[in-house]
Formats: sequence, C-alpha cells, structure tokens
Amino acid sequence: MDALRIGMLGFGTVGRGVADLLLTHQELLSHRAGMPLRLVRIATRNPEKDRGLSLGGVEVTGNVNRVVEAKDLDVVVELIGGIIPTRDLVSRSMENGKHVITANKALIAEFGTELFAMAHSRGVQLNFEAAVAGAVPVIKALRESLAGNRIDLIYGILNGTCNYILTEMREKGLPFQHVLADAQEKGFAEADPSFDIDGIDAAHKLAILSAIAFGTHLDFSRINKEGIRQVSSVDIAWASEMGYRIKLLALARLQDGLLELSVRPVMVPDRSMVAAVEGVFNAVFVHGDFAGTTMFHGRGAGERPTASAVVADLIDLARDLRVGSRKRVPSLSVPVHHLCNLPIQNASQRQGSFYLRLAVIDRPGVLAEITSILTKYSISLSAIHQKGQSHVDAVPLVMVTHETTEARIGVAMDEIERLDSVLEPPYMIRIEAQLA
Amino acid sequence: MDALRIGMLGFGTVGRGVADLLLTHQELLSHRAGMPLRLVRIATRNPEKDRGLSLGGVEVTGNVNRVVEAKDLDVVVELIGGIIPTRDLVSRSMENGKHVITANKALIAEFGTELFAMAHSRGVQLNFEAAVAGAVPVIKALRESLAGNRIDLIYGILNGTCNYILTEMREKGLPFQHVLADAQEKGFAEADPSFDIDGIDAAHKLAILSAIAFGTHLDFSRINKEGIRQVSSVDIAWASEMGYRIKLLALARLQDGLLELSVRPVMVPDRSMVAAVEGVFNAVFVHGDFAGTTMFHGRGAGERPTASAVVADLIDLARDLRVGSRKRVPSLSVPVHHLCNLPIQNASQRQGSFYLRLAVIDRPGVLAEITSILTKYSISLSAIHQKGQSHVDAVPLVMVTHETTEARIGVAMDEIERLDSVLEPPYMIRIEAQLA
Repeated sequence: MDALRIGMLGFGTVGRGVADLLLTHQELLSHRAGMPLRLVRIATRNPEKDRGLSLGGVEVTGNVNRVVEAKDLDVVVELIGGIIPTRDLVSRSMENGKHVITANKALIAEFGTELFAMAHSRGVQLNFEAAVAGAVPVIKALRESLAGNRIDLIYGILNGTCNYILTEMREKGLPFQHVLADAQEKGFAEADPSFDIDGIDAAHKLAILSAIAFGTHLDFSRINKEGIRQVSSVDIAWASEMGYRIKLLALARLQDGLLELSVRPVMVPDRSMVAAVEGVFNAVFVHGDFAGTTMFHGRGAGERPTASAVVADLIDLARDLRVGSRKRVPSLSVPVHHLCNLPIQNASQRQGSFYLRLAVIDRPGVLAEITSILTKYSISLSAIHQKGQSHVDAVPLVMVTHETTEARIGVAMDEIERLDSVLEPPYMIRIEAQLA
Repeated sequence: MDALRIGMLGFGTVGRGVADLLLTHQELLSHRAGMPLRLVRIATRNPEKDRGLSLGGVEVTGNVNRVVEAKDLDVVVELIGGIIPTRDLVSRSMENGKHVITANKALIAEFGTELFAMAHSRGVQLNFEAAVAGAVPVIKALRESLAGNRIDLIYGILNGTCNYILTEMREKGLPFQHVLADAQEKGFAEADPSFDIDGIDAAHKLAILSAIAFGTHLDFSRINKEGIRQVSSVDIAWASEMGYRIKLLALARLQDGLLELSVRPVMVPDRSMVAAVEGVFNAVFVHGDFAGTTMFHGRGAGERPTASAVVADLIDLARDLRVGSRKRVPSLSVPVHHLCNLPIQNASQRQGSFYLRLAVIDRPGVLAEITSILTKYSISLSAIHQKGQSHVDAVPLVMVTHETTEARIGVAMDEIERLDSVLEPPYMIRIEAQLA
C-alpha cells in the first residue's frame, strides 16, 4: 500500500478541520503513519461553497455515491452526523469494503451493535475516537492504555454546551435562559438545544464509554437522563455556599454487580478536579483497580480538536494496514462474543445525600409540615436554609439530607408536593461528595 | 500463537504489581489481548522471598539467564531499573529475539537511541509506557492519539516525590529538610533522594516525551536541570501571596525553531490546572496545533499504577502479534531516519518574569543599591517586598520582575551578589503565568 486513500462524507465545521489538517500536515502525517494520508474526495450538499482551503487535487462532489461506492478509496470518514442518512451511508461504505471512521456519537451509541457486527463480517475497521470528548483520547485510553484494569467507575463532563452554561451561570450570576440565549448567539449552543441541555448528547457518549469500560453491549436506552433546564441561580448560589459546584455529570459505576448509568446535574466538591473543568472543556475520569483514578482533559468539540481525533484514527488505520493487520483491537475492546449484559441499578436504590429546593409559602408552620414528612421517611437533614424574604408569595427553601436512598426522597417529595404550602414540584440534585 | 509467554527481570515493588495483575486478571486480559498473557518465569536476586502472591506455575529463579536466554519466552519485562546491568540484559534479550517492555526511564532516556536501533534490527518491540508518569498513558497519547498535531509545548509534573514535598511545604508551612525527612520515612522519597529532588528523574522523563513530541533524537544531556533543594518556606509563602504555586515543572517548548528543555521550579498561577496537581500525582499537558491543550493526570508511580502501564504494553504487544504485526508504531512515533535534531534555546535567551529572593542586611540604602543595579540592566520590578523584621542580621528581600531575559537577570544577580549587604547567592524562580 503506498497511501491511505480517504473519502469524506460531510464538509461542515469538522469536515473543514479534517481537510485542513490532512492538507497542512502532509509530510508529518506521512512520517508518522508510515504512508501518505491522501484526501481524495469529499461529498457535501454544498460542493460549491468556498471554505477558505486550498484543496489542490481533492475532488468535491455533491454525490455521496462517489464516496460510498468508490473503488479508489480505502476509508470513508463520516462527518455528517445524525442517524439519517448516515446509518445507511456508513453501512453501504462497509459493505463496499471500506473502513469507516466517524465522529458520530448518536450513530455509535444507538446503532453501534449492528454496525460493529457488519464491520466484523466485512473485515473492516469502524473507529470513533472523535465521537467522545473531541481531542481527548479517552476511547483509546479505555480500549488500550487501561485495558489491564477492571474498571469500576467512569465519570466526566462530556457536554461542553452544558458545562459552558453552568460555568457562566456561576461566574456571572445569570439565569439559565439568559446564558442559553447568549451561548446560542456565540455558537456554543444549537438553535434547538435539547440534545445538549437535556443530557442526550452526554448520554450518547456515556453509552459508548461504559460499553468499552465494562465490556457490555451498547445500550443507550438504559441511561438515566436528566438535563440542566431546571438548575436555577438559587441552586448555583447555594452550591457555592456549601462548597460545591453543579456539573452535568455523566457517570457509570459498577457496584455489587449492578451498573449505575446516569447523566444528571450533580453537586461536586468545589476543590475537586472535576469542579475545575470549566467552560467548554471536557474531562473524563476513570477508576481502575490497578491504575487508580486517571483523568483526561481537553477540548471536547470544535473544528480543530475534533479533527485531531479523526486523524488519530486515520493514522491508526494506516499503521494497521501498513503491517497487514485489518482489525487489531475490537471496537469495544473485547470481541462481541465476550460482551456481557450487566444488570442496571434501579435509580431509586441509589444511596447518597441530596440537595432539595422547594418553593414554599412564607408562613409559620410550613417548615414543621415539611420536616415531619421527612422524618416519617427517616430522612435527616444536615442543613436547611430559607434565604432572604422576597416580596412575592413563594420563597425558596433549600435543604441538604444525610445519606439516604433516592427512593425515600422520591416518596417524601411526592407527599411534600401535595402540601398547600408548597407551590412548585420540589427539585433535587444529588451530591457526589467523594469524586476526585 | 496461543499465548504471550512472559519473563520478568526484577521482582521488587513494580514486579510484584505486574505479577499480581497478570495473575488476578487472567480471563479479562485474555479477552482483551486476544490471547492469554502467561507469566512463565521471574528472575530476582531474592527468589526465596515471600511476596504474598499465589504464583501457581510461575518459576522464580535467581538466574537472569533463565529469562534473557530462554527459548520459551516471547517477551522480557525489565523491572530492575538503573543502567547496570539492565542495559546489558535488555540488549541480550533483544539479541535473543525477545520483545522487551520496560519501566526504566533512565535506560530509555540515556541509551534509547542504541536500544531502539537494536530493536529495529532484530525486528522486536521495545516499549516503555510505564517509564513516564506511571499509569498515565502519555506515551501512547503522544505517539498515537495526538499524532495528527504539530506539538509546540509539553509540560508537566513528572516527579511525584518533588510534588509531594512542595505540596506538604505549602499546606503545612514546613521547611524543605523537614518534609524530605518525613517523605523518606513514608517511602515517598529514596534514602539518597538526589535523583528525584535534583530533577534528574523528571529530566529522564522529559527527554523521552520531548523526543516523541518533536520527533527528535533522544538527548538527555541537553536538558537544563535544576532541583528543589533551594526552595524555601519564604518562596512558598510569597508565591501564595502573589497568587502562584511553586511546582517542579518539566517543560519542552518549541518556539521560533529553538527547543527549550528545562526541569526547574517555576511559579504557576494558583488557579491553573497544573497548580491543582498536588501530592504524589503526575500530570502532563500537551499543546498541539489542532487539539489545543490536552491534559493527562493520574498516579505517576507505585506498585499497581506502574503495573497498569506495563500490562498495557503487554496487551498492545499481544494484539500486534495476534495479527502478525511485529512493529506497528515506531518507538519515537516516526522511524529513526526521520528523527531530527532541533537547536536548543540557550537558557539565557529565555524571556519571562522572575521571582528573586535575596538575603540582605537590614540597613538603610540596601534597597537603593540593589534597584540601581537592576535599573542598569533595564530590569523593572512589578513587586518588591521585605517581609517582617527578624532578629538575625539577614532579612529576606523578594522581588518580582517585569518581562526580561534570563541573561540580564543573571548578570544583574552576579553583580548584586557581590554587594556587601547581600549575604547569600540570590535565588531566582521563573514565573510561568500563561500555563493552563
């Protein structure tokens, strides 16, 4: 083989970054990969658009079949995103004997099982380092560097949009809606932000990481998802006062044979490393029985960081092909027939302490009503605050519980919500006091 | 190949960890590596010693030749450390057709060039993930994950002993000698601590990282080394007051075609990520032109973390051999004939601002003498402090300069040192205000 011949699907932000990298670093890449990485063709809906790159001999076409069905390509880089039509295009590329590299977390998280099986049967590679945490090489770290460990915990900040919003809310004291609008203006959040702020994007990434870490089948649907829409300035301020920061945390924990999989806002100690991950950055923490906790931090999105990860997969592929290896490392670290299904921990069984925020009427006796319900369910409090006196009817009442179960909190909250003096559904944030 | 047959040289702390891991995780490793990783034989000076492991069929011998010359081994894991006799044992193992995996940073940093050449000519792998930053997979990250980037800066905390000492000095307000003695008692520092505290160990690791990052030949001798013996409680306290922390930082920076290679105490902003790396932890920060800054953090030493890295190399090797590849990725990321020699930046050319500590006689006119010398060399100050009044003759005078060159600081300090009112050689710490 005298070059790795690359076709690309999609020429948006990340596609531009990959093309830029491949064209800028030709000699460097050739030395490192052991052969030239040659960008042959790009299929895009807008082949005429000027992207400010000197594309030299690269063909830009509006016809995806010129990539998917081409005979003169070794690998297809899929950078369109989403499920339709990418699922079909990726499948067809592999059917045509091409290796595939993708940055598409939704596709891998939701259809990885069928796609890995197809890759296996066709003897091609399907790689996806760029699908999780951008430039941060956490897929390779889990699949290769930490492969000697039994992993029991993996957690991280996997969605830069949410982390940016929460950071801005804390630093500037602004409400969620205001910061979201600002992030949309700056391009850090989509016009329809629900994928990000409802935790779906982070859950896609967690599904991928946990499958590799625990050797399980991919199962996106089993992840408990909660986004950040309900996080208020009151919560952020109280978290700070109590020595915590609120983060949208993706977490997979294996304990007593049960797997906890959740994406939700949590409070982490403000002196922890995870609290220090701010703005659009991503970070992943992995605890292995021999390595201890290892942490990976960097830019989780964007044109150039994502390109770095895509090209790492291309270099890996070229190095494999150069020595005649078609499939050196299984997609999920172990072969499909060694993957297992771990039972999922019921969310209500989770132990922990919790922050609770209520909107109550500011009148005598309310506190007694609420605490008597908590007592009934054996929930004790380590802190309770009713801050300021507002001129409206509702005042926020915040409480922090001692260790209890989410199930107990749930029933207590249901009962509290029915009190006349409680004006809104209670809001709860789990406190993760032990994270590094 | 139905198993990777492993021989081990050395059965100390790390050797025990590797044996423990290989024996504990047999099934897991077999699934991930694609074949069993079978520990066949260990050579050690103390074959009779009970290490509290159930070694099953593993042979423990006092004769290194039973490993180095064995016909029934595929790979030799060298965990003796140091240069003699390991250089010879590693060479002979490779001459005998065995792959070698080592955690020996001194050996790789000082003799890597000859050993890589031998590995190449014998068609075997020589891998060393465990040589730098323990469980933190930074060798693989540089060689593979960030291989699409032109790297211009790499820095980190690579010596846990120094970082532990500096952390303890700061948190407990204790002097260097006291903390060192305590660290020696706890096993965090060697009886002869000079390898660690004089920066040699960190320089070995930096030599390896920078060779991979910049594609240069290994050249340990070109690293500017300064340890932490001179860091005093006064410096630590002043750093805190000014919003900095003192860290023994290993740094390689490529700027204008010149390579800066240094291991030295520096002041970093106390809100930076690098300042948050405390105690025995290690961290490496890499800046690439596409990835931006990526950070890797974890346990840099110890029985189990180091074993995690050694076994990652074993799994890599098994995965290579399973698909018939003997050498997939060059030791320094590019083949030897593509390595270059970059000119080294003269330390005196380095620009920056500096913290200076003098011991002066507490009498009128001293300050004027000193500042007039600084003015002569166009060194301006952003801060000057003379703290407290001691009952001894010498009082500490600390100053912070604006941007200048180390050359100017050097000549000014020489002149200042000759003043009658200056009682000790001035001590200087560079301020790295821009690090992430």
